Amino acid sequence: MKKKTTIYDIAKALNITVSTVSRALSGFPAISEATRNAVIATAKRLNYSPNRLASALKSGKTHIIGVIVPSVQAHFFASVIHSIEEGLKGRGYRVILYQSNESVENEINGVKTLLEAQVDGIIASMSLETEDVSHFAEIITQNKPLILFDRVHDDLKVPTVTLNDFRAGYLATQHLIDRGYKTIAFVTTGHRVKIFNDRLNGYKAALKDNQLPLIEENIILGGLSIKDGRFGAGKLMRCHQKPDAIIAGDDFTALGVIKKLNEIDETPPKIGVIGFANEAFSAYITPTLSTIDQHANQMGSECAQLFLKMSQQENPYQQIDHIVLEPALIERQSTEIRN
Amino acid sequence: MKKKTTIYDIAKALNITVSTVSRALSGFPAISEATRNAVIATAKRLNYSPNRLASALKSGKTHIIGVIVPSVQAHFFASVIHSIEEGLKGRGYRVILYQSNESVENEINGVKTLLEAQVDGIIASMSLETEDVSHFAEIITQNKPLILFDRVHDDLKVPTVTLNDFRAGYLATQHLIDRGYKTIAFVTTGHRVKIFNDRLNGYKAALKDNQLPLIEENIILGGLSIKDGRFGAGKLMRCHQKPDAIIAGDDFTALGVIKKLNEIDETPPKIGVIGFANEAFSAYITPTLSTIDQHANQMGSECAQLFLKMSQQENPYQQIDHIVLEPALIERQSTEIRN
Repeated sequence: MKKKTTIYDIAKALNITVSTVSRALSGFPAISEATRNAVIATAKRLNYSPNRLASALKSGKTHIIGVIVPSVQAHFFASVIHSIEEGLKGRGYRVILYQSNESVENEINGVKTLLEAQVDGIIASMSLETEDVSHFAEIITQNKPLILFDRVHDDLKVPTVTLNDFRAGYLATQHLIDRGYKTIAFVTTGHRVKIFNDRLNGYKAALKDNQLPLIEENIILGGLSIKDGRFGAGKLMRCHQKPDAIIAGDDFTALGVIKKLNEIDETPPKIGVIGFANEAFSAYITPTLSTIDQHANQMGSECAQLFLKMSQQENPYQQIDHIVLEPALIERQSTEIRN
Repeated sequence: MKKKTTIYDIAKALNITVSTVSRALSGFPAISEATRNAVIATAKRLNYSPNRLASALKSGKTHIIGVIVPSVQAHFFASVIHSIEEGLKGRGYRVILYQSNESVENEINGVKTLLEAQVDGIIASMSLETEDVSHFAEIITQNKPLILFDRVHDDLKVPTVTLNDFRAGYLATQHLIDRGYKTIAFVTTGHRVKIFNDRLNGYKAALKDNQLPLIEENIILGGLSIKDGRFGAGKLMRCHQKPDAIIAGDDFTALGVIKKLNEIDETPPKIGVIGFANEAFSAYITPTLSTIDQHANQMGSECAQLFLKMSQQENPYQQIDHIVLEPALIERQSTEIRN
């Protein structure tokens, strides 16, 4: 197979820098018309990716997309970002990122910063702190696509890509019941974000459908972290009605739960443990962690598709799609049938 | 202690949205002078963080910093970003991120995109593909601070924050020798990036200082990933001179090495394994992984400090600092003395 033409080849052929080639292809104003034409002619001659060339030559928009996430440190968000970039690759789009760090004030700054940077649209997942969503309205006012994923808000009439979180909570609970666990606790966040409420409701529904009692002291509302998991597990094991299984709000929290259970000689799967998110480490800890996969990759590519669709329409909001992905159970050692 | 005043309090006091408050404080042009003055007066009255207020009122610069990293999916880069943000917090700076995904073409686009977004400066770590660094020159031409960290290039006369990578390679090798291992292999990347070369040179120097032979077939040059680790370990265990310890180029590669060794019943520490980066999972796998800590947090805060210093100078390049951090050995089960 012939080697793919890169901008290095174009630069070499014209004896100019790769930087100049890149700028010429992207229509950077500081590049002369003559250079630009030479670069385009050479790119065509060398069979440089026609998709990229076509999009670079199309004018008007900046071809910059902004993505706002709570934190890139969570594997889930990093994976969604990666697949958004994959989905827009070859269409000439560049993606800039902004972290809210779970602060609404940062999130407001993020929207402002990205709009100042002249993005063509924004794809976002909200901070835990966000209740009032009026700062997102400016994007819609500017007739630019806004797409929300995972953590969304009903007040915003925009397209969304979410997981069926009720089903995710139900699935985790039913799995534990199927494996013979009978007293199932839940360590989750107290923040009033829809996805966490939905999961808790799924848990409650599964208990009810299986005629198991809902024990209030077995629901621990705190944060989501290794530390919160340790704390939650310790508190639960001192409960009047000690659970024989624990659902953790995410895999980091589940890791903390496992650490604590190991220390007090209640090593899983003696006490069953399941998390959410299928983080990279979950398949490698001891015992390996059962979890709910949230389809980060599919979520990102659906966001990219929605953006491309919206950006081709005169009115991006003429049709508002809501894509709901179904969670998948990943069964591993931490919920194996008890001895 | 009195509760800290937030922009919600200011909004409530004036009966306007938080978004309007945020914009008024940041000098967004669409906000009327009257509103802006009312917000500032109320902010002062309610003792809203004077640092933030002062920086918001200072005009001229955008107070946006751009950060370019190979990938936010690596815990190391995500941690550096987090500490850059921490270091600039309270100074009114906002940080936007760009991923090169190890492509020089993306990196060129990143510089261009961030400059178009009117950033006040750029903090970057280069892609594995980057050889020609002329695309970074435009930042210097615009008299804006450019700071490189971890993956740097001698051709760019800018401040840097790096790890002593020679010492990191030496430290990992010496640790294995001290623990009684005698035939030490290295699975690393073939890319000609300075930090990886430096580590390999440190490894070679440590072998020499301990009168151990350098066995060329025990150096595997490929990529860095779980898959590359599995492949490298498999190849090494079929070598004529089978190693009794393996240094992996990063913790993901080390994880692949461990998986492969477990499968063929050479479970560490029977074969010693050490990685680089001290990823979040490394303390939780079985056996727990010895590794070299690269001080991601300190690297980020040093970058933030350098930026603040440079941005206060007429000529940001009047003094060019090179900060070199010393690596730290994290000893865990994967290199415990062999049975």
